[in-house]
Amino acid sequence: MRQIFLDTVSLERAGELLFARLDSLNMQRLPQERVRVVDAQDRITAEPVFAKYSSPFYHSAAMDGYAVRYTDTFTASETTPCLLEIGRDALYVDTGDPMPEGFNAVVMIEDANLVHGSKTASGRTLIEIYHSAPPYQHVRTIGEDIVATELIVPEGHRIRPIDIGALLASGHLEVAVRKRPVVAVLPTGTELIDPEMLRERPPAPPEIIEYNTAVIGGMARELGAEAVRFPIVRDDLDAIKEVLLRAVETADLVLINAGSGRGSEDYTLAAIQELGEAIIHGVSIKPGKPVIIGFIRNKTVVGVPGYPVSAYLTFKLFVRPVIERLLGIAAEEGERITALLARQVASPLGVDEFIRVKVGSVDGTFVATPVGRGAGLMMSLVRADGIVRIPAGSEGARAGSEVEVELMRSRDEVRNTIVCIGSHDNTLDILANIIKKNHPNYSLSSAHVGSLGGLMALKKGEAHLAGTHLLDEQTGEYNISYIKRLFPDRRMVLVNLVHRQQGLLVRKGNPKGIQGFEDLVRDDVMFINRQSGSGTRLLLDRHLRELNINPFMIKGYDKEEYTHMSVASAVLTGLADTGLAVLSSAKALDLDFIPVARERYDLAIPREFMDEEKVGIVLSAIRENGEFKGLVQSLGGYDIGDMGKVMYEG
Amino acid sequence: MRQIFLDTVSLERAGELLFARLDSLNMQRLPQERVRVVDAQDRITAEPVFAKYSSPFYHSAAMDGYAVRYTDTFTASETTPCLLEIGRDALYVDTGDPMPEGFNAVVMIEDANLVHGSKTASGRTLIEIYHSAPPYQHVRTIGEDIVATELIVPEGHRIRPIDIGALLASGHLEVAVRKRPVVAVLPTGTELIDPEMLRERPPAPPEIIEYNTAVIGGMARELGAEAVRFPIVRDDLDAIKEVLLRAVETADLVLINAGSGRGSEDYTLAAIQELGEAIIHGVSIKPGKPVIIGFIRNKTVVGVPGYPVSAYLTFKLFVRPVIERLLGIAAEEGERITALLARQVASPLGVDEFIRVKVGSVDGTFVATPVGRGAGLMMSLVRADGIVRIPAGSEGARAGSEVEVELMRSRDEVRNTIVCIGSHDNTLDILANIIKKNHPNYSLSSAHVGSLGGLMALKKGEAHLAGTHLLDEQTGEYNISYIKRLFPDRRMVLVNLVHRQQGLLVRKGNPKGIQGFEDLVRDDVMFINRQSGSGTRLLLDRHLRELNINPFMIKGYDKEEYTHMSVASAVLTGLADTGLAVLSSAKALDLDFIPVARERYDLAIPREFMDEEKVGIVLSAIRENGEFKGLVQSLGGYDIGDMGKVMYEG
Repeated sequence: MRQIFLDTVSLERAGELLFARLDSLNMQRLPQERVRVVDAQDRITAEPVFAKYSSPFYHSAAMDGYAVRYTDTFTASETTPCLLEIGRDALYVDTGDPMPEGFNAVVMIEDANLVHGSKTASGRTLIEIYHSAPPYQHVRTIGEDIVATELIVPEGHRIRPIDIGALLASGHLEVAVRKRPVVAVLPTGTELIDPEMLRERPPAPPEIIEYNTAVIGGMARELGAEAVRFPIVRDDLDAIKEVLLRAVETADLVLINAGSGRGSEDYTLAAIQELGEAIIHGVSIKPGKPVIIGFIRNKTVVGVPGYPVSAYLTFKLFVRPVIERLLGIAAEEGERITALLARQVASPLGVDEFIRVKVGSVDGTFVATPVGRGAGLMMSLVRADGIVRIPAGSEGARAGSEVEVELMRSRDEVRNTIVCIGSHDNTLDILANIIKKNHPNYSLSSAHVGSLGGLMALKKGEAHLAGTHLLDEQTGEYNISYIKRLFPDRRMVLVNLVHRQQGLLVRKGNPKGIQGFEDLVRDDVMFINRQSGSGTRLLLDRHLRELNINPFMIKGYDKEEYTHMSVASAVLTGLADTGLAVLSSAKALDLDFIPVARERYDLAIPREFMDEEKVGIVLSAIRENGEFKGLVQSLGGYDIGDMGKVMYEG
Repeated sequence: MRQIFLDTVSLERAGELLFARLDSLNMQRLPQERVRVVDAQDRITAEPVFAKYSSPFYHSAAMDGYAVRYTDTFTASETTPCLLEIGRDALYVDTGDPMPEGFNAVVMIEDANLVHGSKTASGRTLIEIYHSAPPYQHVRTIGEDIVATELIVPEGHRIRPIDIGALLASGHLEVAVRKRPVVAVLPTGTELIDPEMLRERPPAPPEIIEYNTAVIGGMARELGAEAVRFPIVRDDLDAIKEVLLRAVETADLVLINAGSGRGSEDYTLAAIQELGEAIIHGVSIKPGKPVIIGFIRNKTVVGVPGYPVSAYLTFKLFVRPVIERLLGIAAEEGERITALLARQVASPLGVDEFIRVKVGSVDGTFVATPVGRGAGLMMSLVRADGIVRIPAGSEGARAGSEVEVELMRSRDEVRNTIVCIGSHDNTLDILANIIKKNHPNYSLSSAHVGSLGGLMALKKGEAHLAGTHLLDEQTGEYNISYIKRLFPDRRMVLVNLVHRQQGLLVRKGNPKGIQGFEDLVRDDVMFINRQSGSGTRLLLDRHLRELNINPFMIKGYDKEEYTHMSVASAVLTGLADTGLAVLSSAKALDLDFIPVARERYDLAIPREFMDEEKVGIVLSAIRENGEFKGLVQSLGGYDIGDMGKVMYEG
């Protein structure tokens, strides 16, 4: 295996290297092909197109009336109208009719007075005209819209429906467009299974469902390329070389997914180097560092890293520009906005880091909240509203600092997002879906940072509402005392969403025989905790205090999850034996449940937002929409008796 | 013919009427269909999709090293390492390997010390570990990315490539999506010919090339609908009724193009009223007033006006919302910017007028210049960068006032537009095309307002450069004295583009025997003029003065065109017998040419823009790009000896 490792380069340097090489290959443009104009939507013109015919291509009447020779009307005035013979000096025309030969103005029907009973020697009727007509009055002249030979669309232009109209109008039935680049997408990895296998059986370890090529293939298609996915190749140098050779024969660009690292089973670099040349291996970006860029037989080959977020990002940074170059089109960047960063982000010096963020518009200000940063977290990308770049020269960004966000949704969508930050409850997913369905312009985005975190987000103006279930041990009341303490100067409203059951989740049949909190200290019991600041964590800690249990005696107390469902999943999969969560999460994953407490889960809303349309949509969904109530009840474990009721108004 | 005319309504009222009716029809959503996830890009989900499987669906090593039971490592410390037997207490794992049953942490290979020569009774090798491993250290746990049952995408969501990835990862091979709405597009009009006819012969009066349905069908496709174009139907009530009935049977929405007015050959209203009901006929918008909205068998039928700009606009205002409603998706509006209006726009009170504008970014400010306003000017739409709405309550907008522009190109494209306002020359089209080809990110937009108008635009900060050929009669010099007078306080540069021949254009063979300006006063000679302020007009007027010719003796002197090509077209088509224009325009349309003057055509550029990238691109195209020079020479009539030379710098 011939393999020469290259030094990691900066993002900027990687771009220079790639483009210098593309320039030297003169791989600027793809060959052209002629397609029917009516099929050319979204294709890129390969040549400028000039009008064959003028439009209109004949003079025509622009009004209903009489076509006249304007010279005949020179003498007309209010006092001495000029008389014209219909059929000789004046011909009736409807709007759109071609002007009769030799006629060069139109007198509107209402400006011509029929002389009743008049007949000339030749038997013609007369009309009187009181105003002289300037040349070409009310005539739609040749070339008014398009003059033959004028430029309709330049080269390198993406054809829109209106361009199709202008091309047809000017006499074009075919148009020369750039060929679609063919992008070969090669999945490699011994553990990968084709998703189609799932039709027969569920996946089993050590299998990995192969989905990256569907993502990067789809991204290539979005740019106007044709993506060809190859079958999965196992981790074997010869097999990889063989498929690479086949790919470069037919494709304009080859993407080989995974195996781009430096591990013992990573063959991408060796395969490229044995068949051609690698110019880049490793770029100081995060995620996406182990990207490879090489050339085989003058075709660009990109070794796309295996983690899904790395694959997405390296596509945007390195694959997209190559496709744009092949098509000769401008690099179109996503919409950018300036937002306030909701919390601090640390990032290593010397690395361009790309942080996924949720963005909301609260009280007119865009707020960007970082979401999960792991390169393996596909859902963090699915849920993200945009991406923030932390440049290599910086060690991060402070909370509250201004950052530039490249949006993944439109500005309007972001503006119409109802931002709910706080405690997690499964009913929020249902609420989000019902809002999307009934108000397609709006969406509910919920971030799970625990009850206290949600109230802090409200305080900082980062959210419209916060889900909260904080028990005051003194009063036995939920939420109110916290609101009063945290918002001494701000009018707040608490609207109940549900009452819900919290309890210990255990696997079906309770194999470890867990009965209550006392069992958590057992040697054979692994616990899974919720993060500090969450209402569920407070509930646990209160019970432990009451029972005089030292948390540090509990194995797994320091392992924290952020949602009820993650806790349930940990129990289901054996990561833990038990954890504290709501009944609905037990029902969702078919776990057994040991009830511990019934608690009140409210939405905290600043008073001034209560009249905003966004909050109004939430309130009407939980108050009036029977669908939501029905779905919540079907989850089980919820009491909806107070749903939508104002529990407190300060 | 049963026909009840309806009152024209306001735009706002039209929207209310349309949506109220759609609501009452409960025509909210289309039925769903299941498609393969890999084919679902850009489709709209018909249901929320929840994860079937977690991802990852098994615990796996996140590092190369040894899988251990973390409880075995509790006592480990620097001083008293814990000893583990490989094969029993510690199992080697590569990154990505499933965790062996019962093992719950990974110790990195570099943190485990192989005890050489050590062998236990069972013959196993030992490793030493110096730090206790917390639970699930270096383990990628089940559901880290996706927890089974969690929401992947909500209902009404447009599926992106990353969503396809998440759907596959969570075990979905099919997804329920909304059916694509079928939009029937019906062209009507006795004079219409199918563009395909042009394969056999050029069009002849009174024919009209039918292209509107390609535009509105393409716009429907852009939104995710399926557009079905019907054959052309003549203006005949029964024929129209027959095709309407066929269309509503198969389509979800019917667009019938033209015949929506109140003329004697307009049958759309009658056809809709005889088969169903029209709820709107006439909306006080400009263009697009004669739009019809009706319902036949509960299907929406829109009578789209015949002028191309009216068709485009009524689609955006009335058709698009219906398609969005059928798909249950949000109304996505184009990007909006605030710009300064370059010139005053008057607009009738009580009418919502939509003005097409060119937009440029000059010195950091967006400037919007209105372009042609006729409803028949398709090219004004093709060339526009955006649309400004002049609301019904206003009589227009002042020059220099702030207006909101809905962009038809991206903000980046607008920002990268080089704005050239001034005299027209055919070489500017070629320059625009070469710039687009070599710098896909940039484009040159030229607006033709004459030499003086261009200099005024520079003065007002509306352009980067202006084409100018203004002769000073005193000095015989071009441009310089005008620049000095108009820009007393600003440093300006004149860069030569070409020297060119101006002359009188006449039809091939000079049928009227025109020899020079003296012939313009002949009774049988019709002239076509250029607009005041253009250099060509000044040239004409100077010659007329020298020859003592009274302009008012010239027929057609008051008929003005804005470009050389329009003058040439007028002569070619018999609109005029002669006009003054450059030699290249005569060559383009194969006209004869009587030379009158050789003149210098320069680009005037404010000194401070000379170092801007945008202007640099223009200069390098005319100075260094042999392609441009070659193409200009091939036009004929140009002297490129001074091309790119600085003629003056003040």
